[in-house]
This record gives sequence, structure tokens and C-alpha cells, in this order.
Amino acid sequence: MEKTRLQKQLAFLLEIDKMKTILRRNVILDKSKQEDDAEHSWHMAVMAMLLYEYAPKGTDLLRVLKMALIHDLVEVYAGDTFCYDKTANQDKVRREQAAADKLFSMLEKDQEQELRTLWEEFDRMDTPDSLYAGAIDRLQPLLLNCHTDGHTWKQANVTSADVYRRADPIRRASPKLWECIEQMIQACIRCGLLKE
Amino acid sequence: MEKTRLQKQLAFLLEIDKMKTILRRNVILDKSKQEDDAEHSWHMAVMAMLLYEYAPKGTDLLRVLKMALIHDLVEVYAGDTFCYDKTANQDKVRREQAAADKLFSMLEKDQEQELRTLWEEFDRMDTPDSLYAGAIDRLQPLLLNCHTDGHTWKQANVTSADVYRRADPIRRASPKLWECIEQMIQACIRCGLLKE
Repeated sequence: MEKTRLQKQLAFLLEIDKMKTILRRNVILDKSKQEDDAEHSWHMAVMAMLLYEYAPKGTDLLRVLKMALIHDLVEVYAGDTFCYDKTANQDKVRREQAAADKLFSMLEKDQEQELRTLWEEFDRMDTPDSLYAGAIDRLQPLLLNCHTDGHTWKQANVTSADVYRRADPIRRASPKLWECIEQMIQACIRCGLLKE
Repeated sequence: MEKTRLQKQLAFLLEIDKMKTILRRNVILDKSKQEDDAEHSWHMAVMAMLLYEYAPKGTDLLRVLKMALIHDLVEVYAGDTFCYDKTANQDKVRREQAAADKLFSMLEKDQEQELRTLWEEFDRMDTPDSLYAGAIDRLQPLLLNCHTDGHTWKQANVTSADVYRRADPIRRASPKLWECIEQMIQACIRCGLLKE
């Protein structure tokens, strides 16, 4: 028997529970465990909400929050790809597109399309909404790394040039936010948490 | 030296990282661990987004998502109060008000006020936004309990009358959603996951 619209929605909402088991490379602030995708997405969404005043002109916060909530959903099938892992990033697009096909098609066409559009726009970072969402997605682990003695940076031998490249959307989205974040990166370099 | 507005915002965003360590009574879908507050808040927000078509007329999704993201923040100081624990619920209001005073005042007045207003409205469930948010807050663990063999219900000796009382905001917020959820509760009773 074909599922009703609501049954499809509930099945999808249960499927994405897997986000709570997808571990990222960084640890949470007290270093007691690695962060998972659900925790990261929640933290990123609260950050987007509270730092909205620094967003590019014309940014639609509702669309940004939707992007924050769903930007990592494809990882329930594709897994987390560590941003500084060059090999894993080679086939990331292919793996994530296949995951998106499988996951989003659990919903009816209109919602499948909405999630797909939001996710693809997020990835391109070519609109105020997606540039701001992308900036906050970079800011969240950066903030955690700064306050956990550079945990992931040290573990993965990351340099300040890597971090500057990765954090560039913050600079592009918000000069005011970037001014503060750049000082934070510089302080991390001075303290030896991040190598030049 | 007095912190700048942005420094206060970043300090607050680091403080609420504790949400990732506040454990709830229910387990996640694969039963591998207890769910934490950050995971619950994320899951609830995605649910609110995808089930928005069932919300009361006039519901503002942006405000609902904000409520979902911040509704449990006070638990970073007050801890999680299990909804079926009568003793712990006696001083819940006092403990959470004190936590809200301490936590929200880390921000400047306008943002302190915004979070306080959203949180208090969420708790009262007396507007379309807060009733819908409250309904989804009840739906999220209900769905998980139904699909983890009634884990929390069995552990805490919860009856169907308790669950019906707890789920009542779903009925009030959305007859259409309730029709499906009530069938789910009835199925749980028939299968022995929930006692009458």
C-alpha cells in the first residue's frame, strides 16, 4: 500500500535520526566526546539566529535556519567528509548527490524539491542566504577548535593557511564578524594551537 | 574590561555547548545512546519545518524554529526534568527561571529580552506559534518511544493516560496530525509497548 503524505514525512523524520550517530572530527567544548551532525546543525542554527545582525543585507533568516537544519542530512548515507581530507573530498560530490537522491525522494515531490533546492544553494554559497549559512557553518567548528586547544587542527596537521582558506566565507559574508574572528585565529597562532 | 556585544554573543554561544551533554530519558532510534538536548532541539526543529502544513492557521514558522532551537537552553543550568517525574516537576519552574536569569543575561538587553519572551511564550502554549512548537516538542519523543519498543514508557512505568495527557497539545494544535498520532498510540497499546 502506498504511504500517505504524512506517513512519508514521518518515515523521513525517523530516517534522519541517524544524524545523531554521524560523528565529526571535532570535539565538543568540554572535550568529553566528538560532536555529531545533529549537535553541529543545532549549534549552527542558534549561531545563525543570534548573529543575524552581521549577515549580508537582504538575508532571509528563515531560509538560513532551514539550510542550517538540513545542510548535513545527506551525511546519513554519505558520512561526514572531513573538510581538510583531500582524498575523501575528491568523490564527495558524487557520494552526496547519490545520498540526496535516495534521502530526499522519501518525501513527496514538493518537499523533495524544497530540500534539494536549499541544500544545493547552501553548497554554492552564491546568494546572501547561503553565503551567511556557509559562513556560520565554518564559524561553528572554528570557535570550538579555538576553545579546545586546537584539537582538530593538531590532530590533522592543519596550518593557518588551511584555516584562512576554509574561513574565507566568513570574511566575504561579514567584515564585522571577520574582524573579530581573524583576531581569534591570530591568537590561536600566537598560542601555538595553530601552526603557521 | 567590559565585553563587546559580539564577545557577549560568542561567550553565550560557547556556554550553550553544554546542551550536548544534557541527557534526556529517551534513547535515539538505534538505541545506541540516550538523546541529548542539542539533538532533541535539532530534531524538533526539522520536524516543525517539515510538518508546518499541519500547524494552526497564522503560525509563523520563523518564530517556531527559534522556539525549537532555544526552548531547552535553561537546562544547561537546571538540567533535564523528566516530564513524568512528579517530584522533580514541583520546583521545575523556580529552577528554570533562575537558570534563565543567569543564562539570558549573558547577552545584551535586546537579545536577552527576545530569548526570554520566546521561551516564556513557548512554555505557556497560548499562541498559534507556541502551541505548534509545544505540539512538536511532544511529538518528537513520542515518535522515538513508539519506535524504540516504548523504551522510556516501560522504564518509567508510564500509562496510556499519561501519554494522552502529555500529547494533548498535538490534538489541540492539529486535528489532522493527531488523527495519525492517536492511531500510533493505539497501536503501541495493542502491541504491549504502552500499558492502559
